[in-house]
Amino acid sequence: MNFEEQIAELHRGASEVLVDADLVKKLRRGRPLHVKAGFDPTAPDLHLGHTVLLNKMRQFQQLGHDVTFLIGDFTGMIGDPTGRNATRPALTPEEIQANARTYETQVFKILDPEKTRIDFNSRWLGKLSSAEMVKLTAHYTVARMLERDDFAKRYKAGQPISIHEFLYPLAQGYDSVAMKADVELGGTDQKFNLLVGRSLQEAYGQEPQVVLTMPLLEGLDGVNKMSKSLGNYIGITEDADTMFGKVMSISDTLMWRYFELLSFRPLADVAALKRAAGEGRNPRDIKFELAREITARFHDAPAAERAQKNFTSRVSEKAVPDDLPVKVIAVEAAGLRVANLLKEAGLAASTSEANRKIDEGAVRIDGTKVTDRALTLKSGAEHVFQVGSKRFARLRLETKG
Amino acid sequence: MNFEEQIAELHRGASEVLVDADLVKKLRRGRPLHVKAGFDPTAPDLHLGHTVLLNKMRQFQQLGHDVTFLIGDFTGMIGDPTGRNATRPALTPEEIQANARTYETQVFKILDPEKTRIDFNSRWLGKLSSAEMVKLTAHYTVARMLERDDFAKRYKAGQPISIHEFLYPLAQGYDSVAMKADVELGGTDQKFNLLVGRSLQEAYGQEPQVVLTMPLLEGLDGVNKMSKSLGNYIGITEDADTMFGKVMSISDTLMWRYFELLSFRPLADVAALKRAAGEGRNPRDIKFELAREITARFHDAPAAERAQKNFTSRVSEKAVPDDLPVKVIAVEAAGLRVANLLKEAGLAASTSEANRKIDEGAVRIDGTKVTDRALTLKSGAEHVFQVGSKRFARLRLETKG
Repeated sequence: MNFEEQIAELHRGASEVLVDADLVKKLRRGRPLHVKAGFDPTAPDLHLGHTVLLNKMRQFQQLGHDVTFLIGDFTGMIGDPTGRNATRPALTPEEIQANARTYETQVFKILDPEKTRIDFNSRWLGKLSSAEMVKLTAHYTVARMLERDDFAKRYKAGQPISIHEFLYPLAQGYDSVAMKADVELGGTDQKFNLLVGRSLQEAYGQEPQVVLTMPLLEGLDGVNKMSKSLGNYIGITEDADTMFGKVMSISDTLMWRYFELLSFRPLADVAALKRAAGEGRNPRDIKFELAREITARFHDAPAAERAQKNFTSRVSEKAVPDDLPVKVIAVEAAGLRVANLLKEAGLAASTSEANRKIDEGAVRIDGTKVTDRALTLKSGAEHVFQVGSKRFARLRLETKG
Repeated sequence: MNFEEQIAELHRGASEVLVDADLVKKLRRGRPLHVKAGFDPTAPDLHLGHTVLLNKMRQFQQLGHDVTFLIGDFTGMIGDPTGRNATRPALTPEEIQANARTYETQVFKILDPEKTRIDFNSRWLGKLSSAEMVKLTAHYTVARMLERDDFAKRYKAGQPISIHEFLYPLAQGYDSVAMKADVELGGTDQKFNLLVGRSLQEAYGQEPQVVLTMPLLEGLDGVNKMSKSLGNYIGITEDADTMFGKVMSISDTLMWRYFELLSFRPLADVAALKRAAGEGRNPRDIKFELAREITARFHDAPAAERAQKNFTSRVSEKAVPDDLPVKVIAVEAAGLRVANLLKEAGLAASTSEANRKIDEGAVRIDGTKVTDRALTLKSGAEHVFQVGSKRFARLRLETKG
């Protein structure tokens, strides 16, 4: 990859690079850069949204830079110091170590274990004396801190901000000083804190770091950011079939976003796929490539192949033929049992065969498996009946008479 | 002294007692209270304004309480951490120790050396870990801190406030926690910081201290607060004559203020003096009592007696009789020599006698000693001429012709 291609790849998907000229200058020196990204020490259970940042770290690694996965255990050990918020208790050193090991097993699916330095900010922050803390806080003003979006809003709304909250951005910024970071990566929501690092490095006589922010990944719905609580996520420990199926469920538009932020394929490849789509290639087949790549990353290539096969057969199983004709069935006011309906529809030779199929779990109405022979349907609706994977009928139930 | 008299004396001169009921409650327990007052570690050169607080500390001591003279060396060692303000450099531990010794020689004129604990807040603040600092700052909000008068003004005016400035009130408040203070004394300008101590003690599960603020003493002019830079001060290391004379120079109104804040005489004595003044006793004689008491405090009783004698003779020497008539003297355009004027005024029998008096240093014009026989005065002004301590003349010099 030549220098321009490197720059392009490093910019890939980024929200902002502050400031770009500094990145170019630092890269031109030809020395490996110290690249830092910070992570909470709370128990990690990562989804693809979290991997956007890891992927960017991986890019720097691939290009020969020094990448540190920094666990913010100093703030983690503090927890919520007021003790008022039971939802964020202080973590013990043992818990933090356990969480770090969990991180490792997850992030090494993306990062190169040989090239990744895992560090803990308690190593330097924990050793700061009270006098050094005071000196640190002398390098930033109250007014600038109150410019941070959430602080500004809360201050304006009269909601309390504890003074220790002002120390977090400073502590995080001090990490960059202690590590002599050249580049800090983070989500767009971290921009303010990353810029504090830039200021502090200057205050401590260092060249300021480049701040590179990555966007928050949209979830499967393509609208909200990916999150566990919204259910629109792909967890990196999910099984291959689930992962593959979830990727296949996204819209064709979102697919290109995922290619940009989640695929490791070079920009040239992605451009070629876009051209192919423009020339009429089925988007489903392009999505297959993305789903295979992502599934293989967290499982392996054979698992991804199997997941694709399973997906295909599952889809064809469930697929209701487009041209299914509507058949009208007249039913008494009391309704009709499923077995009778199946017989009427020609999906079973007899009601006893139909009941046997129900017992086998082979019968679905509107995609939902029927388990109760006694299920009775009344007139006034249309339903798709299915026996096994191949036989379908669309029945409209009307009142007899 | 009974309980009510004790309460009255402790309130004497105080600006505020927050809260009074707590003070009564603490005193009723009958145990000695931990009383704290903080002082800057910068080189002390105290004037009577500073002693207002020391006098209050002394009262607590006299009543059997534990009084700590706390030197704020933690903040002193930090100095101005930004390094931008050369006027407040960080002090070395040696400088702080030297300043502490200077303090001792000065404050032990007022406090009982046997009963005074001198302490340094670096003992506990210096040992606070960075995590404990964060916990400390969690106990106070940004909005409440910005209520402090100077912060509020500067924030409103867009003047920068460094975040470390927020740490000073918290550090000072933590002193009260570390010392388990029952009472903290300070100037009215310290009220906010003293109240932070009250809050922090509650946050750390302690009974909150009583905050007792003392007013800033007016200087000799009776208007501005006493200060070196305004020149309206009485330094506690000034010689007895100067000290005595400066006390005598204050107004009769200010005298009562000084009795309240500077005299050790019980309230009943002061009330009696006020009655005497109302009944026609010469205020000068009452002021003599104050001047003697204060001079004796920083020197000794014989020195105070001598200072009073010196003062009396100096005053009678300098005193211009109120009923001195104006005598008009006609002078040539070139003016007239002092010796001739003295002769004209009848203050010398001859110009040669007048010149001899000049040589003896016995001649003053408008209170200033004349040393030069050649001094010539021109017309257009009025002057008081004096030979020795008793002979005066008021001459108006007019142009001859």
